Amino acid sequence: MRRKRLYEGKAKVLFEGPEPGTLVQYFKDDATAFNAEKRGTITGKGVLNNRISEFIMTRLNEVGIPTHFVRRLNMREQLVREVEIVPLEVVVRNVAAGQFAKRFKVDEGTPLPRAIVEYYYKSDELGDPLVTEEHITAFGWAAIQDLDEMVQMALRVNDYLSGLFRGCGLRLVDFKLEFGRLWEDEQMRLVLADEISPDSCRLWDVETGERMDKDRFRRDLGGVEEAYQEVARRLGVLPEAGPVDLKGPKSVQ
Amino acid sequence: MRRKRLYEGKAKVLFEGPEPGTLVQYFKDDATAFNAEKRGTITGKGVLNNRISEFIMTRLNEVGIPTHFVRRLNMREQLVREVEIVPLEVVVRNVAAGQFAKRFKVDEGTPLPRAIVEYYYKSDELGDPLVTEEHITAFGWAAIQDLDEMVQMALRVNDYLSGLFRGCGLRLVDFKLEFGRLWEDEQMRLVLADEISPDSCRLWDVETGERMDKDRFRRDLGGVEEAYQEVARRLGVLPEAGPVDLKGPKSVQ
Repeated sequence: MRRKRLYEGKAKVLFEGPEPGTLVQYFKDDATAFNAEKRGTITGKGVLNNRISEFIMTRLNEVGIPTHFVRRLNMREQLVREVEIVPLEVVVRNVAAGQFAKRFKVDEGTPLPRAIVEYYYKSDELGDPLVTEEHITAFGWAAIQDLDEMVQMALRVNDYLSGLFRGCGLRLVDFKLEFGRLWEDEQMRLVLADEISPDSCRLWDVETGERMDKDRFRRDLGGVEEAYQEVARRLGVLPEAGPVDLKGPKSVQ
Repeated sequence: MRRKRLYEGKAKVLFEGPEPGTLVQYFKDDATAFNAEKRGTITGKGVLNNRISEFIMTRLNEVGIPTHFVRRLNMREQLVREVEIVPLEVVVRNVAAGQFAKRFKVDEGTPLPRAIVEYYYKSDELGDPLVTEEHITAFGWAAIQDLDEMVQMALRVNDYLSGLFRGCGLRLVDFKLEFGRLWEDEQMRLVLADEISPDSCRLWDVETGERMDKDRFRRDLGGVEEAYQEVARRLGVLPEAGPVDLKGPKSVQ
C-alpha cells in the first residue's frame, strides 16, 4: 500500500499519517542553500536530524513549549500533528552571522546587544524575503496577537536552547523556527513545527569557534557529515554509541 | 592589612571590596540545613561553588540577565557589585521535591504542570517562611513592579539553566535565587545576586535519578563532595583536569 505524499520540501517529505490529524515527516539527506541555488547531499543527515529534532522537540515539550512532535517512528521518520503552517520563518539571532552580518556590515561573531527576532516570508519564488509586522498583518499571514505569541515562544526557545547547547560546548548563534496552527476544542493554538537541527541552527564550538552546522555545506568547509554527527553525539542521541556508518542499508530506509 | 568583614552568612563571607561599590564574596566549606539545625562541612565546597557560580553568572550575563558578578579573584573569592539585597528567596520549581512535595503531599519527582515561582522571606529568626505578594508589598520588602521583574528574570533563568544542565545530563528540579538593588544614573536596577550552585539548586542525574546537590548533605546520602565535583566537571569548570584534592593548603586559603 502506497502512502499518500502530501508535500515534498527541500529536506523533508510529508506523508499522510496513520490517523486523522497526523502526518509522517520523513527526513532526506538532500541539502540546499541560497534559495536552492546550491544543491547537494549530506550522507546520513536525515537520520541525524530526525534524532536531533526528536530530542530537542521532546525537551521543549517538557519545559512547556508546545510542538507538533508526537514520536519518532524509525530512522528517518517521525509522527507529527498536522498543522496549518504559518508562512513565516521566525529567526532569532544572538550573534551576527551569515546574511545578517553582511546586511549590517558587522563582523561575523559580533554579539548582538540583545536577541533579535526577524520574520521572513516563506516563498521560494520571492526568495524568502525579510518582512515586517506591517507586511505580515496587512497580508493576513498572522494576526498581531499570533506574532506576540510566536515571539514569546521564540525567546523562550532561545533561552532554553542557548543553555542546552552551551552545556554541550556549543554556542547557539542563531536559528530559524516555524510555527503551525492546531485546532483543539474549537480553539486555535500555535505550536512549534518543522524541525530544529544543524540545518536550522548556527552552532559554533565554544572552544575552537568551528562551525558545526549547515554553514559547512553552504561554504564548502568540508567535514559536513562529521559536524552533524558531533552535534548528535554531544546531545547524546547518536543512533549507536560511537560514530556509525550512516550509509549502510540498515540505516537509510 | 586586615579587610573589613561586612557580613558572615552560613556558607559565605562578604568583605569590603577593593573599590567603592564592590564587595569580595568568600565561599566557605560550611554547610547548614533545616534553618541551621543541621551543620557540617563539605570539603572543597567553597572552591567548587566559587567556580560553578562564576560559570553560571557569566553565562547569564552573556544572555542578558544582569547579575552582581564581576570576576573571580582566586580559589575561594569573587568580586561582586555591592547591592541592597531584596529580603526574599525566589524559588522556581519544575518538579516536586523537598518540603514542597511534603506540603502538597505529592511524590517527589512529580513534574509540575508548569514552573511554579514561590517567595520566602529571608529571616533566620522566622525560619524563612513562605510569603505571598500581599505580605511582600504590605511590608514593603518589594514593590509589585519589582516582583514582576524578578519573576520574569527567574523564569528566564529557569529556561536557560534547565537547558544548560540538561546539556550536562542533569535535571534542574528547583532552585533559589536572590536579587539585589543597584543604583546607576539615579536609576534602580534589579540584578541577580548571591550564588547559583549545588547549594541552591536541586540537580538530579538524568539517567540514574541520583541527587547531585545539597540534598546529599541534608539527607546523609554520602558522596557529597563527589557530587559537587561531578557537577563542576560536567560544566567544565573543575580547577584541574580531573578530580583534585581540595583539602590541600594551596586551594583552601
